[in-house]
Amino acid sequence: MAEKKRILSGMRPTGPLHLGNLHGALANWIDMQDKYDCFFFVADWHALTSNYEDTGNISDYVRQMTIDWLSAGLSPEKNTLFVQSHVKEHAELFLLLSMITPVPWLERNPTYKDQIVQLSNKDLSTFGFLGYPVLMASDIIIYKADGVPVGVDQIPHVEITREIVRRFNHLYGNVFPEPQAIMTKTSKVLGSDRRKMSKSYDNAIYMTDTPEEIMAKVMQYVTDPDRKRKNDPGNPDVCNVFDFHKLYSDQALVDEVNTQCRKAGIGCVDCKKKMGANLVKFLEPIREKRHYYEDHPELVADIIVTGSAKARAVARQTMEEVRAAIKI
Amino acid sequence: MAEKKRILSGMRPTGPLHLGNLHGALANWIDMQDKYDCFFFVADWHALTSNYEDTGNISDYVRQMTIDWLSAGLSPEKNTLFVQSHVKEHAELFLLLSMITPVPWLERNPTYKDQIVQLSNKDLSTFGFLGYPVLMASDIIIYKADGVPVGVDQIPHVEITREIVRRFNHLYGNVFPEPQAIMTKTSKVLGSDRRKMSKSYDNAIYMTDTPEEIMAKVMQYVTDPDRKRKNDPGNPDVCNVFDFHKLYSDQALVDEVNTQCRKAGIGCVDCKKKMGANLVKFLEPIREKRHYYEDHPELVADIIVTGSAKARAVARQTMEEVRAAIKI
Repeated sequence: MAEKKRILSGMRPTGPLHLGNLHGALANWIDMQDKYDCFFFVADWHALTSNYEDTGNISDYVRQMTIDWLSAGLSPEKNTLFVQSHVKEHAELFLLLSMITPVPWLERNPTYKDQIVQLSNKDLSTFGFLGYPVLMASDIIIYKADGVPVGVDQIPHVEITREIVRRFNHLYGNVFPEPQAIMTKTSKVLGSDRRKMSKSYDNAIYMTDTPEEIMAKVMQYVTDPDRKRKNDPGNPDVCNVFDFHKLYSDQALVDEVNTQCRKAGIGCVDCKKKMGANLVKFLEPIREKRHYYEDHPELVADIIVTGSAKARAVARQTMEEVRAAIKI
Repeated sequence: MAEKKRILSGMRPTGPLHLGNLHGALANWIDMQDKYDCFFFVADWHALTSNYEDTGNISDYVRQMTIDWLSAGLSPEKNTLFVQSHVKEHAELFLLLSMITPVPWLERNPTYKDQIVQLSNKDLSTFGFLGYPVLMASDIIIYKADGVPVGVDQIPHVEITREIVRRFNHLYGNVFPEPQAIMTKTSKVLGSDRRKMSKSYDNAIYMTDTPEEIMAKVMQYVTDPDRKRKNDPGNPDVCNVFDFHKLYSDQALVDEVNTQCRKAGIGCVDCKKKMGANLVKFLEPIREKRHYYEDHPELVADIIVTGSAKARAVARQTMEEVRAAIKI
């Protein structure tokens, strides 16, 4: 049997995870955990690139994010789950790679240009923000990852990593494989205002929300905007609550809603109540696991310590090869 | 008795040390070793900023530089002598400081602009070269140094460090003192061509040169350019060999040369021979110590290991405070 390919992916601990994260990146990770040798990490140093002025919650977010992962079904036995800042070797490799990375590669990074425009309320003119793709490259190649699961917008990051790898190998000898971008399906979960679910839009349902909070948020969802009154027929094809039904309700209810909505046989309030109940039910086992981990903080701490030690052992081995190659 | 103030200084291991280094930075360090709590380090990571394409000799230069320091009289007991890359915490602090350092602070660094023009044969467009003042800041403040001995051209580096310190303390609380620039006297040692002694001008006498090599180099020194023939009177005031007499010869010989040269009573060849013999004699004990350390490589290795462990203990303590302040 061929060895499993190694992949690496991380999330920045900038707040609790919502359904968009759950059905997006996290669901992809859970899909991949049997197929690949997975390294998943909480990217707390990366959280500083845009949030250096407000770091008070990072360590709590790190713990919460780990609990979200575990509750959603990410296995600490199958995967290497770790926290970036617990593996200092990333910082050493970041420093070394910075020496061989041309500034123009970073300046032409489309996400860099994009974020500076989009996050105009944040100070992104820092040396660290300019260099975050170098830190990403370190994160990836220190584990000699074969692949990186990405959405379309992250392809340039993998491309810069591959360029840095080629340059390193050319200068110092063949230490790193070039990681491949593994395209993942992206989640279509919309927020209450029909925009993409996002913390910054304040339209999200969080994995930590109580059943009451979930129901209240669901009831505020904007549905088919053309259905003004209960007696108007609706169009499930453009209704984000119907999308949720497909995620959380059984086929019989999905079919019923699909039929009844089109002939005004069910009102949006009823429809949301049914969906909300199923969403609450769907999240029930996740919530139960979360309670369990919250009641056993020493278990979570131990998972982080153990995973970070596993990651560190790999990173140390790579850094020995790196130092030998550079002869430093 | 008040505690000694702490200072920090480093040298990049880009080749063997010459008389300019010996009578410049190194002599200053030796002067300071009783007065201050001194941290002196071999800046091997900094050597990569301009020499990342040619790293084959760095580890040998590190060892040679340590031997040069010890041979010249730098005490491993009085000082903390260490190698930068042996204290990984510098890289972690570099990463963290990079998050709060605006790129414009680095772009307006006069040395940055200057070097890009002067070293046009090197590729200095890298992210690491842009950020070397951030690494310098880490080097300095991780030991909470009170002062940094500098020449005029390095004042901007200390100024950037102070700006970074103020920003860090403002954002996260008072962790670092602002280091002061301590102006040091600069050496007037000229090379054989009357330019500043420098490896890149190929006009230097090295601490590792044999007596034969030293005599051969001294005999090629250009003296008072207006003294064409032996019978022409010379002017010791503009003669770099006379400057060397003042460093290496006794007062009687200095006076004699000063008098005789002006009335053509001594020729340049004789004058150089006398100076060269005294220079060889001056370097004799240094050369003997060098032989001793070269014969005892385990002693040198041990000094580096011990010094780096001492430095690391201080750096670790600071990093604990840094992480607590950032709450990461």
